[in-house]
Amino acid sequence: MTVIKHDIRRGAYYDSVVLMQLQCGLIGLPGIIDAGVVMATTANCELLAANNLLSDSIAASPDDLLIVVKAENDSSASEAIRQVDSLLARRRSSASQDFRPRSLSAAVKQLPDSSWALISVPGRYAAAVAREALELNQHIFLYSDNVSLEDEIALKKTAREKGLLVMGPDCGTAIINGVGLGFANRVRRGPIGLVGASGTGLQAVTSHIHNLGGGVSHAIGTGGRDLKSEVGAITAHQALDLLARDPETKVIVLISKPPSPDVATKLLSAAQATGKPVVVDFIGYPPPARKLGNLHFATSLSEAAELSIRELENWRLVTKELESPVSSLYLRGLFSGGTLAYETLLSLQASLSPIYSNSPISNSQVLQDPLHSEYHTIIDLGDEFFMVGRLHPMIDNDLRIRRLRQEAADPEVGMILLDVVLGEGSHPDPAGELAPVIKEVIGNSGLMIVAIVIGTEDDPQNLQSQVERLSEAGAVVFRSVTEAVNHVSVHLSRHAKNEFPPVTLDRFAQPLAAINVGLESFYESLTSQGAQAIHVEWRPPAGGNEKLALLLARMKK
Amino acid sequence: MTVIKHDIRRGAYYDSVVLMQLQCGLIGLPGIIDAGVVMATTANCELLAANNLLSDSIAASPDDLLIVVKAENDSSASEAIRQVDSLLARRRSSASQDFRPRSLSAAVKQLPDSSWALISVPGRYAAAVAREALELNQHIFLYSDNVSLEDEIALKKTAREKGLLVMGPDCGTAIINGVGLGFANRVRRGPIGLVGASGTGLQAVTSHIHNLGGGVSHAIGTGGRDLKSEVGAITAHQALDLLARDPETKVIVLISKPPSPDVATKLLSAAQATGKPVVVDFIGYPPPARKLGNLHFATSLSEAAELSIRELENWRLVTKELESPVSSLYLRGLFSGGTLAYETLLSLQASLSPIYSNSPISNSQVLQDPLHSEYHTIIDLGDEFFMVGRLHPMIDNDLRIRRLRQEAADPEVGMILLDVVLGEGSHPDPAGELAPVIKEVIGNSGLMIVAIVIGTEDDPQNLQSQVERLSEAGAVVFRSVTEAVNHVSVHLSRHAKNEFPPVTLDRFAQPLAAINVGLESFYESLTSQGAQAIHVEWRPPAGGNEKLALLLARMKK
Repeated sequence: MTVIKHDIRRGAYYDSVVLMQLQCGLIGLPGIIDAGVVMATTANCELLAANNLLSDSIAASPDDLLIVVKAENDSSASEAIRQVDSLLARRRSSASQDFRPRSLSAAVKQLPDSSWALISVPGRYAAAVAREALELNQHIFLYSDNVSLEDEIALKKTAREKGLLVMGPDCGTAIINGVGLGFANRVRRGPIGLVGASGTGLQAVTSHIHNLGGGVSHAIGTGGRDLKSEVGAITAHQALDLLARDPETKVIVLISKPPSPDVATKLLSAAQATGKPVVVDFIGYPPPARKLGNLHFATSLSEAAELSIRELENWRLVTKELESPVSSLYLRGLFSGGTLAYETLLSLQASLSPIYSNSPISNSQVLQDPLHSEYHTIIDLGDEFFMVGRLHPMIDNDLRIRRLRQEAADPEVGMILLDVVLGEGSHPDPAGELAPVIKEVIGNSGLMIVAIVIGTEDDPQNLQSQVERLSEAGAVVFRSVTEAVNHVSVHLSRHAKNEFPPVTLDRFAQPLAAINVGLESFYESLTSQGAQAIHVEWRPPAGGNEKLALLLARMKK
Repeated sequence: MTVIKHDIRRGAYYDSVVLMQLQCGLIGLPGIIDAGVVMATTANCELLAANNLLSDSIAASPDDLLIVVKAENDSSASEAIRQVDSLLARRRSSASQDFRPRSLSAAVKQLPDSSWALISVPGRYAAAVAREALELNQHIFLYSDNVSLEDEIALKKTAREKGLLVMGPDCGTAIINGVGLGFANRVRRGPIGLVGASGTGLQAVTSHIHNLGGGVSHAIGTGGRDLKSEVGAITAHQALDLLARDPETKVIVLISKPPSPDVATKLLSAAQATGKPVVVDFIGYPPPARKLGNLHFATSLSEAAELSIRELENWRLVTKELESPVSSLYLRGLFSGGTLAYETLLSLQASLSPIYSNSPISNSQVLQDPLHSEYHTIIDLGDEFFMVGRLHPMIDNDLRIRRLRQEAADPEVGMILLDVVLGEGSHPDPAGELAPVIKEVIGNSGLMIVAIVIGTEDDPQNLQSQVERLSEAGAVVFRSVTEAVNHVSVHLSRHAKNEFPPVTLDRFAQPLAAINVGLESFYESLTSQGAQAIHVEWRPPAGGNEKLALLLARMKK
């Protein structure tokens, strides 16, 4: 008959390494079958119960340390519980072998070259430590999780004003000037710079890049929530801007779980404005295309790595493409083909905003009145709304010609996009009717008209002559949606200039020097990589007693 | 001073070609500046107003024909309105030059080889015509739009029972045995078969295939709503099944706007079961991967064409891959890397159902209790829920080892998927702790364990020996999520067998013979392509008077 016994240490702080080692120590004692050492949160108590280490409910709060042993008999269990203090003490004495500063400010005095603070203290203490580090002018690698969204926003806004980066919270990885912070794979240095709102995503891509023979300039983590609307991708924008200016970085990779659509649009515009090839993997976000100007969309982490290597060879071509004049006027797409309209909207929503349609992809794109365009608009003229008792616009050009004139008369319109679908069943000569109107509106207003001609040389309309007549009328003609949207996005994308102090490049080019607060293993990893580092012998304010800590904080003010 | 006059014909039926020609005829009259001839729906009246052809509100119902002219003076306007009858009569006399049947059944008697009915009558009459065609054992190409969802479902269920296809409603295009129906590009015949819930999507892809030198066996339209939950992709499933059996089809292309997730999963399982390479472009649906077994995901219409041509060369390889044993047991993924878990879920949700996670992509995937898996489950053990006062699972393997044993003890589990992330900061020897447990659970339960090892040969853990120890323990080891999910999806995908009568291939192999009801231009297109066709001189029941038509229909019962 096995026996389970437990012990509770009220409101005591121990770091997670200590807890893990205590648990291992207990399991190693004679007669002990299993043991658990956890902060007594609901989740942790459920975990103990799932492992048959907790039969009854226990009166412990989330701030309490809960120690449970399962033994072959009562005396082994009692003996193990008695050993807890000596096991804890053994750990402590080994840890404090050399002199260590007990505060961040003392650490920075000891290592004045430090530009980085690695923070991995428990979440509830992390924001305060990070604020202190920002005051000491340190970039922050914030590994801690369970940090509030409000704290994250406040920290990032403060950092942005000072030209500092806050990577995190819950930032798992970064590689700065060849040194890995937190969890990081050892990869060769090279011309690929990365920005990632995803820790293992960055690890996987940097590893794949290395395994494919490539190398990394910097890999900058942002924390998983950076691309949420509330945070607005503050860190990702700073990181993109930094990598755009970094002469060592030739190709940029941008990785995230699906961002908020508004954030995605701004971030992709910023990525376009870098002028460098940017490989984007917004995991689970439908890629707008394979390529939009200098943006390349991957559908997996391994593909992101492959594309970044491939684009290294092409990167010189990009600058040329970006020299074409960019217009801030609006696009109006007048489609006869519903799917062509849809694919166009899907591609352009990535970089044009606001964009509306009578065949919207998201609710925010609903065009209030199909008869009147607003901002950027994509109209499907074959939609049921237009079709009662009327021939399809692929047969009857009347509706489209009227709308073309209407859009061209709008001084806010800079570009009109049309599809011309040839083939059986369609109008026998669409270019014959459209070309004169295209010529007329270009002559009147100077706007750009782009036509997508879908068809084959066997189609009854004579593909070649249709294309020629549209071109002669002044239209820019493409043979697929893919090519047309690439053209549109290059000519219409806009990027708001950064009005905050830039993150300076010099601290990224210097040998890395850092202060570590929290997990000692991160400090050991830094020194083993040859970086200068100081570990702070951190303890929570008032020994983890939150009421007392609050009192102390109030007295400081 | 211009003058606008209008005329209303109450409850009269005219087909859209007649209306277009009347409008052109009116505009050609002396003194006429513009004209509009429309069924008086709200949308059409708004369109007239937008074109300055309607100043006052007009008392007309959607069933009424509204004729408007804008003239230089009053007498020209009046004269134009007077000409309406003679313009309409001119059209009618030219149309009825040869003898034509006035009913579907008469048409089928006249052309007994007919297997196809092309229906393009106004939406409110289309379902009844389609029902009649199904009774006459015809496959249906239903061009008409504005057909109710209920009618679509009923028609498709009836057709499925009879082994017939209903393409549509709102089906723009198809190519059957080399003959285009509706709007269709002329493309060479070849080994690529297509299924498309999107008209211009199919047109674009078939055109691109032709332009790239490829050819098409059949292109089967389904109508845009076929992949909605309510319809359940009845036509798309029939079409996939048909193309799977068709010896002329070597590669299949499947195109749609984003389907309902449940429909997508079933359709992709069916696509996997075809054993042929299937190129999927669900426009705007995040692609689960570039490749999942025999499925290849495109991100644009032009890329879908490119992939289909490329896969022609690879198609022999696929059959081999499908011979591996497929399990109907469940997968449990136990991840230390959140992004790796997310990418895995994204990929596998395409073909595994139901699937749950503590880090779900959609609300329907929320795992009620993170401590207990259900069906297929992907767990992120580094999620904040598990992390209070505990080391990350990349450092501390305890949590994962316990969960591994828990999952292995579940007799419904056939496969466990793990990630092992190496590098700075991670556990110094994860395989050392995981391999013995992997060996133990494989020995006990015979399940398959798949490990994704992320890292480089420079990482401190020694990548090579980590991989070897996991392999020796019996795990199947991959070096990226992409490879691992491909393996999983091939071994776990399931496809429910089709319990309905199959659509027989013989009628697709015969020269096309069809009955056309509605737009005469579709009939002309058929005969110009060398197909046998009969045009039905169709008129709505009771001349378009709906009350009378309802009475007549009731008397028939």
